[in-house]
Amino acid sequence: MGGSLALACKHAGLGRSLTGVTRRLETAEQALAIGAVDRATTDLVAGLRDADIVVLAAPVRTVLRQLHQLRGLPLSRCVLFDLGSTKRAIVQAMAGLPPTVQPVGCHPMCGKETSGLAAADPTLYQGAVWVITPTSRTTPVALGLASEIATGVGAHPLVLDAERHDRLVAAISHLPYLLATALVLATAELGTEDEMVWQLAASGFRDTSRLAASDVDMMLDILLTNRAAIGEALQRVSAQLARLGDRLAHADEPALRDLLGAARRAKCQMTKAN
Amino acid sequence: MGGSLALACKHAGLGRSLTGVTRRLETAEQALAIGAVDRATTDLVAGLRDADIVVLAAPVRTVLRQLHQLRGLPLSRCVLFDLGSTKRAIVQAMAGLPPTVQPVGCHPMCGKETSGLAAADPTLYQGAVWVITPTSRTTPVALGLASEIATGVGAHPLVLDAERHDRLVAAISHLPYLLATALVLATAELGTEDEMVWQLAASGFRDTSRLAASDVDMMLDILLTNRAAIGEALQRVSAQLARLGDRLAHADEPALRDLLGAARRAKCQMTKAN
Repeated sequence: MGGSLALACKHAGLGRSLTGVTRRLETAEQALAIGAVDRATTDLVAGLRDADIVVLAAPVRTVLRQLHQLRGLPLSRCVLFDLGSTKRAIVQAMAGLPPTVQPVGCHPMCGKETSGLAAADPTLYQGAVWVITPTSRTTPVALGLASEIATGVGAHPLVLDAERHDRLVAAISHLPYLLATALVLATAELGTEDEMVWQLAASGFRDTSRLAASDVDMMLDILLTNRAAIGEALQRVSAQLARLGDRLAHADEPALRDLLGAARRAKCQMTKAN
Repeated sequence: MGGSLALACKHAGLGRSLTGVTRRLETAEQALAIGAVDRATTDLVAGLRDADIVVLAAPVRTVLRQLHQLRGLPLSRCVLFDLGSTKRAIVQAMAGLPPTVQPVGCHPMCGKETSGLAAADPTLYQGAVWVITPTSRTTPVALGLASEIATGVGAHPLVLDAERHDRLVAAISHLPYLLATALVLATAELGTEDEMVWQLAASGFRDTSRLAASDVDMMLDILLTNRAAIGEALQRVSAQLARLGDRLAHADEPALRDLLGAARRAKCQMTKAN
């Protein structure tokens, strides 16, 4: 996400000078080599010195650690935002930043299963919804800047309360991941009895299970910082599954037709709208 | 499926003469117009007269009705197969065909959400697994012919017991459809409280929910003729979902990591193999 944003900013001519702060020297060198940044360092204090805008591009719990780490640093006046996939915990942690910092949460709704600088793509943000979640300290300047960068890289900014954001992404992002994962686990269970199941899996299975290949560390960060909302989403989908199973067990064709028809209409309407 | 098979046979030069039997005159005319068949009729008896090979290309319960209807007809010596998505009920019904008929069940594992002759595609079967389910009456000649046609249109024939086929497709085809449907229904439920959910749905949601747009009549036929196996598959996936939900509710990171890691490995291995 960070590499893609740096490249996208470069392509769009956003910012005078970009400094990359990485954990590993190798990554810093790579960032320079692909032209994503003008300067690169593994030294956080040196990297942030004189920055006007600071972007934390890391998995959620790394961002939380970074926010904690930044509390003690003598930061100059700057706008700071992150790109984390859940926002409630991050927005809360932003409250502890030094008063010179103007924080705001961001979540560009795009991504790939691949990560790392080698997968960096300047077009990643084009057409994506870029959620902006204000904190109690977010100024109009910070909000405006986040929005300007989002628009600059081709995304559509959308201001949402952090709690509401987390509830919505639990339903449309974290839940699909858990469904894909449960599907693969159930298939693997059957696969221990009959290996043929893997050979038969066709395109429908591949699409429905695609998200199960997501990076585990990234997903753990997301799941563990959004437990309550994901728990609700799981209950909703389990109830719908039980309802479908019940209608099917009773061969209740009219009721089953109603449910399948309602889902099909909602899905088709959504496809048309997007 | 029928239109695509007719076109694929034409392209591959399979069969001397193809006759299309349709329920509606309009479809018969359309089949002739696109060159899928040499002759077309809505008269079943006339259409089957002197046929060497009869292919029933219809949703499962229509095939079951057709098999019942064919019992009373004076059919000449022929090989008959269907393209239905579940096989146990069809293979059972094939036992009642006149003794001149050599029946065999077939299920080419490909398809689209679109149906009808307008969506017919001669490349539909290329690279697909084409399951062949013998009946107690299936002769080597019938098995060989079904296999030859499968190979001729670019598919890979795979002989499976009907019961085993139904159990496997319940897991890798019917279950993904029900998961996609439950996901859309759960999202629609949340959508009544917060319409924004539809706007946020990104590519992950779109893939996981894609199958919910499948044709309802076709899916009802499939679900209602494979209830027991689908019931088992639903139980397996519900147990996995409950397990994931439980580990998450308890913030049991090591256990959650194990489950997500196992799913990711299985999914990636599968992607590599296919």
